[in-house]
Amino acid sequence: MRVEGLAINLATVREQWGLRQAVEACARHGIFAVDPWRDQVAACGLTEAATLMRDNGMRVSGYCRGGMFPGADPAARQAAIDDNRRALDEAAALGAACLVLVVGGLPKASRDLAGARAMVAEGLAALLDHARACRMPLAIEPLHPMYAADRACVNTLAQALDLCDRLGAGVGVAIDTYHVWWDPDLARQVARAGAGGRILAYHIGDWLVPTRDMLLDRGMMGDGIIDFKAMRRLIEDAGFTGPQEVEIFSALDWWKRPGEEVLAACIERFRACC
Amino acid sequence: MRVEGLAINLATVREQWGLRQAVEACARHGIFAVDPWRDQVAACGLTEAATLMRDNGMRVSGYCRGGMFPGADPAARQAAIDDNRRALDEAAALGAACLVLVVGGLPKASRDLAGARAMVAEGLAALLDHARACRMPLAIEPLHPMYAADRACVNTLAQALDLCDRLGAGVGVAIDTYHVWWDPDLARQVARAGAGGRILAYHIGDWLVPTRDMLLDRGMMGDGIIDFKAMRRLIEDAGFTGPQEVEIFSALDWWKRPGEEVLAACIERFRACC
Repeated sequence: MRVEGLAINLATVREQWGLRQAVEACARHGIFAVDPWRDQVAACGLTEAATLMRDNGMRVSGYCRGGMFPGADPAARQAAIDDNRRALDEAAALGAACLVLVVGGLPKASRDLAGARAMVAEGLAALLDHARACRMPLAIEPLHPMYAADRACVNTLAQALDLCDRLGAGVGVAIDTYHVWWDPDLARQVARAGAGGRILAYHIGDWLVPTRDMLLDRGMMGDGIIDFKAMRRLIEDAGFTGPQEVEIFSALDWWKRPGEEVLAACIERFRACC
Repeated sequence: MRVEGLAINLATVREQWGLRQAVEACARHGIFAVDPWRDQVAACGLTEAATLMRDNGMRVSGYCRGGMFPGADPAARQAAIDDNRRALDEAAALGAACLVLVVGGLPKASRDLAGARAMVAEGLAALLDHARACRMPLAIEPLHPMYAADRACVNTLAQALDLCDRLGAGVGVAIDTYHVWWDPDLARQVARAGAGGRILAYHIGDWLVPTRDMLLDRGMMGDGIIDFKAMRRLIEDAGFTGPQEVEIFSALDWWKRPGEEVLAACIERFRACC
């Protein structure tokens, strides 16, 4: 039976399966939208990955990930832009809906947060022509503020949308419940994102109490404290019609379970909680 | 030699010393402002604690802490308000500059973040008359968003200042670098806080990369990625003239060192980095 409206970010089963196994398992479970990661695609081969998606009737709800723009010197920043151009080409070859961007944190030994944020804006601007030429939207993903130093210095939806406003067409946001659920300004900013046609992806994953690891202890929907139905209403009221994409980094729990069990849980919780 | 402009939040040496030892050690090091915690004062006795402060010429830069307003039922919320009234009385007896509030997170088994935030607003409103009668300012401390579920659902300076605007006189904010350094809107909100005369306390502590524990791995100034001199400029440009108060929860490092070494490090880093 086809599960409408659900996508699986393949990080969720990265420890269990390679790309082919993961895609075929999703198809068996009736899930026909996935978001693969670059390392998974590279291990499979880009052409084979594209064929795999097509043969299984898979919608590619996003491609993870580009970004990581800040660098200690101009050469490092240029290398990041070049790498992002390749990521755009891969996303286009896969027919992805967008390239998801984790923008990067502070360069090593830097305390200049404003400077890192400026590097992100510059990197995005430098990438934009190629993104537009590929017709591949750039989806800026604001990450939880606890990642501001080392993963992404874009930390609120408002901040991501301010970047979108500066950049114009071809840029939007990926909204992940795990990263934004706490934001006092969330309802207003989701509406703003929708009004601007900026919502490119909607990721779901729960916040556990306690959270035992800052990166790899994300929860299956229903196991934590996020109100997914309320969040979905916000997103859909803002006009988003794409799938809800489960993205769970869970070294402490779900990555240890059989992939089949994880997919079954995604479907069950998606129906019960989201 | 007197160290001007420095205060020690006594959580920083809570594993090493009781209140009397900590206060006398600060005085020996030339530090004449402290912020004690309620459990430290209770163990010493309130009257003796007040005498201790006076005898050592200690300014009490704040009293930690009130708050924890959300509760699963009205009785729990009323108990929190009653307890906060006692905290106000204690703060007044100590001659503290403000009562620092960690407002509390979600009630157990709740996913209603908006509801918890409403409970905070109600709790603050219920406390305000007594705070004004005691002439004891309430200092709302926005906590890092990673504590939104379990410690404080006020997570940005903007959100805290919105509460202040609703409540009127007698309420302000405690600004802690550890909690707010990442905020893209920080400069604007610090200026707003200053313009409204709302900055009651300024706490300093560093963000370590990596952070190994979400609560108890805070860094000594200079060991992490916060630009304290830039932050101090913001705070002072906003008109704050109080001390910089070192507050470091560090089960993994500083709580294991001799208290004398910790105080010496606070002074050295305060001079070098802040």
